[in-house]
Amino acid sequence: MNKPTILITNDDGIQAKGIYNLVSFLKELANIVVVAPSKAQSGQSMAITIADPLRVHKTSFDGAKQAFSCSGTPTDCVKIAIHEILEEKPDLILSGINHGSNASVNVNYSGTMGAAIEGSMEGIASVGFSLLNHDPQAEFSMCEQIVKDVVQFLLKNKHSLPSHIAYNVNIPNIKASEIKGIKWCRQANGDWVEQLEKRFDGSNQAYYWLTGSFDTQDKIQGTDLFALEQGFASVVPIQYDLTNYKALKALENYDI
Amino acid sequence: MNKPTILITNDDGIQAKGIYNLVSFLKELANIVVVAPSKAQSGQSMAITIADPLRVHKTSFDGAKQAFSCSGTPTDCVKIAIHEILEEKPDLILSGINHGSNASVNVNYSGTMGAAIEGSMEGIASVGFSLLNHDPQAEFSMCEQIVKDVVQFLLKNKHSLPSHIAYNVNIPNIKASEIKGIKWCRQANGDWVEQLEKRFDGSNQAYYWLTGSFDTQDKIQGTDLFALEQGFASVVPIQYDLTNYKALKALENYDI
Repeated sequence: MNKPTILITNDDGIQAKGIYNLVSFLKELANIVVVAPSKAQSGQSMAITIADPLRVHKTSFDGAKQAFSCSGTPTDCVKIAIHEILEEKPDLILSGINHGSNASVNVNYSGTMGAAIEGSMEGIASVGFSLLNHDPQAEFSMCEQIVKDVVQFLLKNKHSLPSHIAYNVNIPNIKASEIKGIKWCRQANGDWVEQLEKRFDGSNQAYYWLTGSFDTQDKIQGTDLFALEQGFASVVPIQYDLTNYKALKALENYDI
Repeated sequence: MNKPTILITNDDGIQAKGIYNLVSFLKELANIVVVAPSKAQSGQSMAITIADPLRVHKTSFDGAKQAFSCSGTPTDCVKIAIHEILEEKPDLILSGINHGSNASVNVNYSGTMGAAIEGSMEGIASVGFSLLNHDPQAEFSMCEQIVKDVVQFLLKNKHSLPSHIAYNVNIPNIKASEIKGIKWCRQANGDWVEQLEKRFDGSNQAYYWLTGSFDTQDKIQGTDLFALEQGFASVVPIQYDLTNYKALKALENYDI
């Protein structure tokens, strides 16, 4: 049997430890093509580059058949890979491993998941992997079995699973031996309690850093946050149809 | 009765004609605070600025009580406005009027709608307005009645409508007298048929522009694309819970 082709990208940039680990976990299993941002693109959501040209550079990447760095966003990387670099659609698109959580509403801002959602729009099963540790030097060994299990599950069940889905996989930052398994979940509700940090530069002009702490009342059973707290990896199936059908039904009773 | 406070932002930048028109349509009706990007931010989705500081400059804006330009994305503008500039939460957040369509899957990439979704996360009714004409010199007069009707509807029904909703309003590029009304819709499915345009610079190095044409098989009744084609303005209620519950139910039958 031919090895599957897997496209791998991320949002922390092609030099990040997380993408290096992701490729190394899968290099025996698949033909891997890396197309990843040349620099960090955290918090890029599904941003695309419209007002600037995109540059693509061939590079080498341990464990990948081919590798390219791209000047654009994670979503741009998927577009360039599918429409310019790959001759056929890949069997899977993976994004990550992100340094830091994309559980709960973090998914909405996530460049890692932006790339995976773009992949799902192309009708290709796509996964964003994130480890709950944003340290650039994070240890990723506990992710290996989760990554392999999710990838093999998706390849094996390719023809029976729902289509146009992006999978948001988050992995707790605990020892591999302590991870209890993988749980299907819904996205927990949550809030960033914004603490914009105001500072003053050398000319006494104000500037701000986005910071803030995460708050949620929605850590109940069934949510990704609950599963993670219990020591499971969480998997949320993600859609790009943003219509709130329940609200639509209620609103149809109103005339504007 | 006190006038309501409306926060207005956009993604085409504070100098764009669309935001100028949006403010001018509402300046009699509300106290308007403008916090908008200092330069064009199209295609920014819900991107936030993490690796750079944010700068905010007080400016003047015809029809607004207060106005600020911000170096960041549309979503950053909403965060800065809510957490640093405004003393109380506004009654409404409006984004636009965007020069160009945000119907169908354009919503996923839209900076205009990114800002509105951020507003909805704060529990504030938020609307992105878009005109189906991406010309910087577009004529916006046909938007006036739609904008006023939507804003008055949301203010009047504030306490009975579903919460945490962003409204994606698209307006056909036809004469005001030809617009047939406003229709509640779902987001049409669609594809960008990507035509990355490859060019070569003066040093014979390749670069790409994202371009592409839009394709859909889903222009059926009930969709935003159908309503627009029939001469209606479309309104899609948008949620930020990206969980695909139907897929989740099917997937729960599988063990990974």
